[in-house]
Amino acid sequence: MTAPIVAVVGGGQLARMMTGPATELGITLRVLVESPDAAAALSAHEAVVGLPKDADPVATLLEGATVVTWEHEHIPAAVFEAAAERGVPALPSAAALTHAQDKIVMRSRMDALGLPNPAWAQVHTEDDVEAFLAAHDGHAVLKTARGGYDGKGVRVIHSAADAKDWIDAQATGGPQLLVEELVPYSRELAAQVARTASGRVVAYPVVESTQKDGVCAEVIAPAPDLSDALAAEITELAVTIATELDVVGMLAVELFQVGQHVVINELAMRPHNSGHWSMDGAVTGQFEQHLRAVLDLPLGSTQPKAAWTVMANVLGGAREHLSAALADVDDPDAKIHLYGKEVRPGRKVGHVNLAGDDLDDVLTRARNAADIVRDGKQTGGGA
Amino acid sequence: MTAPIVAVVGGGQLARMMTGPATELGITLRVLVESPDAAAALSAHEAVVGLPKDADPVATLLEGATVVTWEHEHIPAAVFEAAAERGVPALPSAAALTHAQDKIVMRSRMDALGLPNPAWAQVHTEDDVEAFLAAHDGHAVLKTARGGYDGKGVRVIHSAADAKDWIDAQATGGPQLLVEELVPYSRELAAQVARTASGRVVAYPVVESTQKDGVCAEVIAPAPDLSDALAAEITELAVTIATELDVVGMLAVELFQVGQHVVINELAMRPHNSGHWSMDGAVTGQFEQHLRAVLDLPLGSTQPKAAWTVMANVLGGAREHLSAALADVDDPDAKIHLYGKEVRPGRKVGHVNLAGDDLDDVLTRARNAADIVRDGKQTGGGA
Repeated sequence: MTAPIVAVVGGGQLARMMTGPATELGITLRVLVESPDAAAALSAHEAVVGLPKDADPVATLLEGATVVTWEHEHIPAAVFEAAAERGVPALPSAAALTHAQDKIVMRSRMDALGLPNPAWAQVHTEDDVEAFLAAHDGHAVLKTARGGYDGKGVRVIHSAADAKDWIDAQATGGPQLLVEELVPYSRELAAQVARTASGRVVAYPVVESTQKDGVCAEVIAPAPDLSDALAAEITELAVTIATELDVVGMLAVELFQVGQHVVINELAMRPHNSGHWSMDGAVTGQFEQHLRAVLDLPLGSTQPKAAWTVMANVLGGAREHLSAALADVDDPDAKIHLYGKEVRPGRKVGHVNLAGDDLDDVLTRARNAADIVRDGKQTGGGA
Repeated sequence: MTAPIVAVVGGGQLARMMTGPATELGITLRVLVESPDAAAALSAHEAVVGLPKDADPVATLLEGATVVTWEHEHIPAAVFEAAAERGVPALPSAAALTHAQDKIVMRSRMDALGLPNPAWAQVHTEDDVEAFLAAHDGHAVLKTARGGYDGKGVRVIHSAADAKDWIDAQATGGPQLLVEELVPYSRELAAQVARTASGRVVAYPVVESTQKDGVCAEVIAPAPDLSDALAAEITELAVTIATELDVVGMLAVELFQVGQHVVINELAMRPHNSGHWSMDGAVTGQFEQHLRAVLDLPLGSTQPKAAWTVMANVLGGAREHLSAALADVDDPDAKIHLYGKEVRPGRKVGHVNLAGDDLDDVLTRARNAADIVRDGKQTGGGA
């Protein structure tokens, strides 16, 4: 047997959700996990326990691999070097991935490509912050260039004093900082495309995502009331980014809608929470698509299978053992996905997809099912 | 964590295809496989190598299991005894499963329930065979009561002499025999239902299946040109069988259509080839449904997600390493499922599902994709 071996750095739910499609395609999925009880450790075909910064587990991960890919952006340069030494393609490449790792690099590149950024500036001093605030009605978003996710490394500021601790930290070797205008957006959208090394690209429908406390709470696919013109513009934008940055694999572009325009919020070069709906709602789920893209296989159809699909995240709540929720969710259309992670308050521990023709009904039922998974029957609202 | 553990006897593609849904539901799938390179061995969360007739591997399989189920019918009584000793529910039960193991038991029970059998008789001697042939235009199908599948243990006969070797074998301890009329059927249909221990039942749409050399070649869901009345009659028949025989899990009823009636061909109490279409074509695939049923969870919707879904089996052919086919099948709607089995001529090694609105188009493309997987591009016919 000559099954392709896809090596994945990272053992969370994103790697975990690659395993089902990998099994069906006859692909061996080998994951590098931080601990034996990581979300992907039990599900993956092969699990290597170790950290990406350590040479030995990385060597084991790469041994005989067809390709190595990532479920997060925190990939040390040494992993790319080790892959290059062994002739294992590492995708997306370090050059592409830097745009998902570093917001200053990303903003600069988007500017260079003429793509819609919010107003932004790199800041070194409190005076820099002060100047930006003065030009933007006294409000801004301060961000660390690296290391932020799910609301971490992001702070709304109204004075230079609000930025002082991070500015001081930067001066003593802490993360680089940028400020961005507080975008007066009406909603958040996300575009996903998949691209192969050969340059084939497919785009998923643009979706609407709702955040709660900086964490994705739900996604509606496709985004309701989105004009065809704006949908086409967003899709072209995402395809341009994938092509110009030479992204291979899944790319998610998170956007703010402002009137009939959008500005770019963040990039992710991997399967992304905004694409979980596709597991049950599209002909080809994003996890299969990522595997196809990094292996340079023909890409699958991104067509939705229903008028509407809603993804509702399950964030850790009252229920300690989520598997008990399987008995409680009595909606035949609810597709439950549990990540096998220890429940902690607010932690992403699963999601529910639900598809149908009537958006209100689909939304209500998806939320209700996610509520029941999280907290049990007593707190489930809606129909 | 208290993930339910579903133990499965059998390590073929049916157990393998349970693993994706098990992962998503947070269920641990533990399989008993004959060898470490069995189809399910790599994919399953836990694999125990051994035979169901051996006490030690069965004990390991059952240790801490929430339930034990089967991917085939050849389950020794000792397995049921071992499960009972440990208090592990064994589903479907031995009493139910005997109807899928023994065609004489099945035929007798269908008669007792007033369900549509072909004319049939148990036969002990060549005279018995002669008498049946005389009453049925000189043609009949001779079957072994046990052990037959995919065309094995089945022989069309035109004289008692055609049956002599099996009659002689029966007399010296070989399998019991029955004869059935050669049903003048227009096509083969299959009905699938899922049933929980609590008695919840859901039915999938009735499908048409086409056999080639006694092996399932393709399935069309739903069966084209099937009257609503006959579809309802067939569904009621399958629900009756599941209920009366106390089947828990998936039940497949294979049928012959004769005019506007059907007769029962065979029963299978597990996920079945005739239900593979549901993996991509229904809201709930049969593998998730089987897990839900044996764990007594709420059952999922059986609604189709497209007007038509065609499943085309990949039987072993010219291509030795099927994973190479992933690059060759360039149809974005083709959902490829590979079983990780060594390719042998005629062996079931994978299948392709393809869904859409136009049946002719869907059929052509599904067959074409399956041809390419099997033999490579040069022999792929059609569009």
